[in-house]
Amino acid sequence: MEALYSEAPGGPGVDDLAGEYRRVRALTEALVDGLSDADLTVQSMADASPAKWHLAHTTWFFETFVLRDRDPGRSPFHPAFPYLFNSYYESEGARQPRPLRGMLTRPTAGEVLDYRRHVDGAMLSLLERVCDPALRERIVLGLNHEQQHQELMVTDLLHLFAQNPLRPAFASGEGPAAGERPAAQRWIAQQGGIRRIGAGDEGFAFDCERPRHDTLLRPYRLASRTVTNGEWMAFIEDGGYRTPTLWLSDGWTTVQQQGWEAPLYWERHDGEWWTMTPHGLRPVDPAAPVTHVSYYEADAFAQWAGARLPTEAEWECAAADESVDGNLLESGRLSPRPAPDVADGIAAMFGDVWEWTASPYVGYPGYRAPAGAIGEYNGKFMCGQFVLRGGSCATPRGHVRPSYRNFFYPHQRWQFTGVRLAADG
Amino acid sequence: MEALYSEAPGGPGVDDLAGEYRRVRALTEALVDGLSDADLTVQSMADASPAKWHLAHTTWFFETFVLRDRDPGRSPFHPAFPYLFNSYYESEGARQPRPLRGMLTRPTAGEVLDYRRHVDGAMLSLLERVCDPALRERIVLGLNHEQQHQELMVTDLLHLFAQNPLRPAFASGEGPAAGERPAAQRWIAQQGGIRRIGAGDEGFAFDCERPRHDTLLRPYRLASRTVTNGEWMAFIEDGGYRTPTLWLSDGWTTVQQQGWEAPLYWERHDGEWWTMTPHGLRPVDPAAPVTHVSYYEADAFAQWAGARLPTEAEWECAAADESVDGNLLESGRLSPRPAPDVADGIAAMFGDVWEWTASPYVGYPGYRAPAGAIGEYNGKFMCGQFVLRGGSCATPRGHVRPSYRNFFYPHQRWQFTGVRLAADG
Amino acid sequence: MEALYSEAPGGPGVDDLAGEYRRVRALTEALVDGLSDADLTVQSMADASPAKWHLAHTTWFFETFVLRDRDPGRSPFHPAFPYLFNSYYESEGARQPRPLRGMLTRPTAGEVLDYRRHVDGAMLSLLERVCDPALRERIVLGLNHEQQHQELMVTDLLHLFAQNPLRPAFASGEGPAAGERPAAQRWIAQQGGIRRIGAGDEGFAFDCERPRHDTLLRPYRLASRTVTNGEWMAFIEDGGYRTPTLWLSDGWTTVQQQGWEAPLYWERHDGEWWTMTPHGLRPVDPAAPVTHVSYYEADAFAQWAGARLPTEAEWECAAADESVDGNLLESGRLSPRPAPDVADGIAAMFGDVWEWTASPYVGYPGYRAPAGAIGEYNGKFMCGQFVLRGGSCATPRGHVRPSYRNFFYPHQRWQFTGVRLAADG
Amino acid sequence: MEALYSEAPGGPGVDDLAGEYRRVRALTEALVDGLSDADLTVQSMADASPAKWHLAHTTWFFETFVLRDRDPGRSPFHPAFPYLFNSYYESEGARQPRPLRGMLTRPTAGEVLDYRRHVDGAMLSLLERVCDPALRERIVLGLNHEQQHQELMVTDLLHLFAQNPLRPAFASGEGPAAGERPAAQRWIAQQGGIRRIGAGDEGFAFDCERPRHDTLLRPYRLASRTVTNGEWMAFIEDGGYRTPTLWLSDGWTTVQQQGWEAPLYWERHDGEWWTMTPHGLRPVDPAAPVTHVSYYEADAFAQWAGARLPTEAEWECAAADESVDGNLLESGRLSPRPAPDVADGIAAMFGDVWEWTASPYVGYPGYRAPAGAIGEYNGKFMCGQFVLRGGSCATPRGHVRPSYRNFFYPHQRWQFTGVRLAADG
Repeated sequence: MEALYSEAPGGPGVDDLAGEYRRVRALTEALVDGLSDADLTVQSMADASPAKWHLAHTTWFFETFVLRDRDPGRSPFHPAFPYLFNSYYESEGARQPRPLRGMLTRPTAGEVLDYRRHVDGAMLSLLERVCDPALRERIVLGLNHEQQHQELMVTDLLHLFAQNPLRPAFASGEGPAAGERPAAQRWIAQQGGIRRIGAGDEGFAFDCERPRHDTLLRPYRLASRTVTNGEWMAFIEDGGYRTPTLWLSDGWTTVQQQGWEAPLYWERHDGEWWTMTPHGLRPVDPAAPVTHVSYYEADAFAQWAGARLPTEAEWECAAADESVDGNLLESGRLSPRPAPDVADGIAAMFGDVWEWTASPYVGYPGYRAPAGAIGEYNGKFMCGQFVLRGGSCATPRGHVRPSYRNFFYPHQRWQFTGVRLAADG
Repeated sequence: MEALYSEAPGGPGVDDLAGEYRRVRALTEALVDGLSDADLTVQSMADASPAKWHLAHTTWFFETFVLRDRDPGRSPFHPAFPYLFNSYYESEGARQPRPLRGMLTRPTAGEVLDYRRHVDGAMLSLLERVCDPALRERIVLGLNHEQQHQELMVTDLLHLFAQNPLRPAFASGEGPAAGERPAAQRWIAQQGGIRRIGAGDEGFAFDCERPRHDTLLRPYRLASRTVTNGEWMAFIEDGGYRTPTLWLSDGWTTVQQQGWEAPLYWERHDGEWWTMTPHGLRPVDPAAPVTHVSYYEADAFAQWAGARLPTEAEWECAAADESVDGNLLESGRLSPRPAPDVADGIAAMFGDVWEWTASPYVGYPGYRAPAGAIGEYNGKFMCGQFVLRGGSCATPRGHVRPSYRNFFYPHQRWQFTGVRLAADG
Repeated sequence: MEALYSEAPGGPGVDDLAGEYRRVRALTEALVDGLSDADLTVQSMADASPAKWHLAHTTWFFETFVLRDRDPGRSPFHPAFPYLFNSYYESEGARQPRPLRGMLTRPTAGEVLDYRRHVDGAMLSLLERVCDPALRERIVLGLNHEQQHQELMVTDLLHLFAQNPLRPAFASGEGPAAGERPAAQRWIAQQGGIRRIGAGDEGFAFDCERPRHDTLLRPYRLASRTVTNGEWMAFIEDGGYRTPTLWLSDGWTTVQQQGWEAPLYWERHDGEWWTMTPHGLRPVDPAAPVTHVSYYEADAFAQWAGARLPTEAEWECAAADESVDGNLLESGRLSPRPAPDVADGIAAMFGDVWEWTASPYVGYPGYRAPAGAIGEYNGKFMCGQFVLRGGSCATPRGHVRPSYRNFFYPHQRWQFTGVRLAADG
Repeated sequence: MEALYSEAPGGPGVDDLAGEYRRVRALTEALVDGLSDADLTVQSMADASPAKWHLAHTTWFFETFVLRDRDPGRSPFHPAFPYLFNSYYESEGARQPRPLRGMLTRPTAGEVLDYRRHVDGAMLSLLERVCDPALRERIVLGLNHEQQHQELMVTDLLHLFAQNPLRPAFASGEGPAAGERPAAQRWIAQQGGIRRIGAGDEGFAFDCERPRHDTLLRPYRLASRTVTNGEWMAFIEDGGYRTPTLWLSDGWTTVQQQGWEAPLYWERHDGEWWTMTPHGLRPVDPAAPVTHVSYYEADAFAQWAGARLPTEAEWECAAADESVDGNLLESGRLSPRPAPDVADGIAAMFGDVWEWTASPYVGYPGYRAPAGAIGEYNGKFMCGQFVLRGGSCATPRGHVRPSYRNFFYPHQRWQFTGVRLAADG
């Protein structure tokens, strides 16, 4: 896995598409290197999928939306796989119910890898023969799709291993060491006015990032770094999880029903907080960014801190000139890193933790979902979810960008989700 | 009830506050005139409340936020009533769980009316003695609050009576007759640019309508009238409820889980659609606006029609110069009325049906919830709901205005909710 | 209500069937005298029914199984009532779902009383004209059926009023006073051998009490009285509700899921136990029989006490020669009474509390359910329930007998259910 | 696996305890030979457990109740395994919640086999040193316990593999072929009177089979064979699953809620019934005994057939003189076999399918659960379940006997459960 990490050259969309295809596909498999068929098969909750399913589903995506779409008479590798590995594309017909993805002890992990080999062969053969813009566009979409599932594989495996009372590690290496001092949080002033956000016509972006358009902002301030575990402990100690007036109504209902008292994976032993990580159970590092918090918690924390969450437009405008780099998947750390203490400016907009914004996930002005099954990719989820920005320690390098819109429901916590505060200017 | 309807002079905020207090309070009671203690006590679902509870809760609001807040040592009418009739104000302490409001066969309806008499006496006595701006503001809030519950009483009673296989009427009079011809739908072009929305500083408005602020619109078009039952039947016949690609993902899940095949209250007998109304079971009038549809259905219909829902800013800008009048509660019709066939311009922006917008309910730029319990009125609900505009046939006259923001969850259908289409300019 | 109580002459089956009909029907209505339409309409849980529904259902029973069965062309009083008031007779067609019986604010209580008047008129007219054995048998069944619902009306009303934080009384009079000394518990030895149980051919009995048959008993001992509240407090204080090894597996699951810490309706205030009764909230009387306990609790208590529950055959053989008298509905006490301190022999086998037996409710050897809808009365419930014996303080006089088999699920507690211990001989 | 099957010499309790220990333990592992770690780890429903869990739990049983009980200071193989692999013994402390047994991808299958090796070594070493009667009794209990889990492994794996749309086989070999002619069903008359049932003091039996005691029977008749698939198809075609009056009330509720239309695992393709078996999807053999039916279905079928289910005493008396042999686990068939057409007498009382009896599972007269954790083995389940008799095609040879009492809830169907009819004599 390390070797693959080190050579990661850039994001999908580079010139050597076959090479990029090989690189992305190989990284997916590197992520599960050393895991057992059982590790790859069990589903720990309806929101998460087995790693084996991710391995197969990303392959089905290429088989269906590249190979099949170019050659409608083509038979699938296995007649049942479209049923088993379609995720949510109604246009592609019936499918294994999502909560039952973990029932599939067959095909085995080895058979799924055979499936990958088979489709990889056909894909690379196709790329040798033709590469028109439409094909290229679809393949780049497939690679970005696979990168999204790379991140989900990490977070879904983490959720699975966290259910195990042994709290086993699944990532190699020692993982992060605590002990750094947290950087101070400063407010960075940002200008208002008519600003332009969203992805332009050049380069890859998901449909929901477009069209690029004007938006009207009022002057605002953004925190120089995300909220730390230490600050979150203060919130807990101040009774944050027991004070209903800090919470959105739905959030407070969730706190009570779920018995939330801390971020997901936190557990207290002998008065100290520990948290489950890909490297097993570790002490919570006060200097590191808090993660595995829901939108509800993010909002309540902001209330408690006398601040608010930024809108996605505020976030994007502030990030527009930042370098798209940071603590991403390829670092192998798989945990958020304490922010550096930069003298001025904003730190760590990319990587570490996805940052909840105050913006519900809806279409931009003029947005229209594409025709066909691909049109189901984003548009049909524009209801009830909130936008997150910036990528996390499980996001592959080259996948994220300033206009990138991730989205989850406000109660969900199993992604690497954190909080950056904002305030009116 | 008719008498009260006819004399309704204007909205809360008029000069004669005591008179306005009497008028609003009397209308609330007129709405339940002739109903039995059982009719007023039963709760038909967790979203709905018993009419008796509404009668008491609105009274508790005045008792608590006017009388008690001015005289903190004041004892409540009954020591248990704050527990029984607090709705959701965490700052006011524990309360009867919402799904169990229907367990309260005691106090009786008569005792609740005594409670109203008692608080009315104290309120009117207070108004004779003092009327400073703060008091006036709080009372006007209380009256607007009571008007919201007037509408809920109608819709909650409708839901209750609709559960009864006898489909009994609860409203007096004959109710609407069908037979009118539907007006044609035209597209009315609207300008883009920086527009100003939200309530200004003058006059009553809820906190969530403020601050008034600039927003940036692109040119757009708005339908001259709302979608009719006849158009909805065409959607049904075209398989609208069986075509997953028309639906938001959460919407399609809901359609399947709930078995939706038509708007709430529609039932087919011998091939004809009927619907439950406050006047009992009636044939569906093809010319009248469709109502009791969810956001999910509104959005799917718009997809099917090749259009979209308007944003709340688009709606408000179009409504800014319209007369705030229409088929409101005082008409006694209690059902949406076919739109008039206006030659140009927009019809029926107010009354008939609340119009779903594409806008999630969030705070306006610069919004801050007020301090104290009153701050729980709107702010804590800014998550997961969508804004509706324009009032309905159950909204009391004087209550609604262009900046008025109603909000419900996307699956909810028991309000008088309908659809006005929009399109890009 | 008192007047009716005092004149109760005997059980159904006496010579004057018309008089008995009048008496039973009048007692049903006396039980709800003074209650509001709301009190009679609300349903507090799926297991309980509104009193108004009981009033109507018992009437539907006569209308259907007497009047309609003799005159199949007869129209019902109201065409919708068979749907509304059929309980569980599949042979009689579709019906209002049980959990939704509380939605029926219409017909009003007054209209249901009119329904009763109407059917009473037809019934009494019929009785004047004919009285063949088959008719008589069916009417006596209907009267016993109505008596069962009399008891359910008391327990269902108690459950409803117990949901009200005001803990209102619904029974007239002062109710029982505490202060008596509990009687000592002695073990009364009983003989084994082949014994005969079940109802013989003479007189009324439910089908499940037949056929009378031989059963084989080993010598056993039965407690002279039922377990008292004072003994139950000792069980609680000894950690009875926190000791899993005392409990049946399903019982312990229920204790944990429901958070049981005491009998239903018990609540502790300032260290003292109180309990809801038809006369409102009252201190728990240590001398009185414990009631509102489930089979699970009864069995766990017996384990804790080093004893066991009797089988129904053991109970019946011991009761065979006891006087069928005791603290029954007509006493108006509506709460169990401390057992008298009899020198020898067994006290209070009838009345006070239904006594859980260790016997699952199944058919006797040779049992066959009758043909037709009446065959659904008992047979289809012979699965998963346990037999209780002896009647309670809410059982009408003349209704219970030594062979009487009541039955409930092991988790149910809202009946007046208690415990008499047994041991091997 | 075949080799092990062929050499099976007898049941636990034979002279060579060490040899018997080795044989039983080896058979357990042979049952999962060739399955992947994923196959052994996934849990398909709360009622079923992963095969890996069975492998570990049976080992924990010996480690705890033999090794630890003899040497209380002994450390477990792994400190977390008592938590992970305790099933339901409250006396042994907290444990992995049953519905979450499938989360345990670690320890791996290999580590669990190491655990087995470790405990086997200690057990065999102990047996070399000592073998007092108490030790022997406990070990024989452990072996019988393991045999129960052998059967559960087969049925739990079948349930898991049946969830897979590929319907994969997990058993080796071809499996049964259809085509035999069904034997006729005859009624075999049985005498009544005082009969003796239950296990005597000699030999191994579970506590719930004792004490041996007198019971009183009336003359009865028992079917010469169990109900066949062909007869069940006639029941289906006659509307058996759509006729509420055939069903127990709880059964009919279950039919409707679960949408039952046939036995578990039956599916219709092109008008023909197929069923999932350990050898994959197979046509339903009309001559073979029906299996995977619930108590509810068994009872409804008996109603439809004008018969009834036998009581467990009736079954045991008829079986007392039958040879305890039949189509058991070691045959490797793993599916019920058509009954032979015996001229007179009763066929196939043992093996093929467990036969539902009409008897709720309760303690025999004089039954007392043993002290300590072992006392939790049977007694605490004596509520809500029904007794089954005779063993099945997944029961290991030597495990079953005439007095053997199996028990399941009336809705459960994933065991090899079938029906033998009875009638009054």
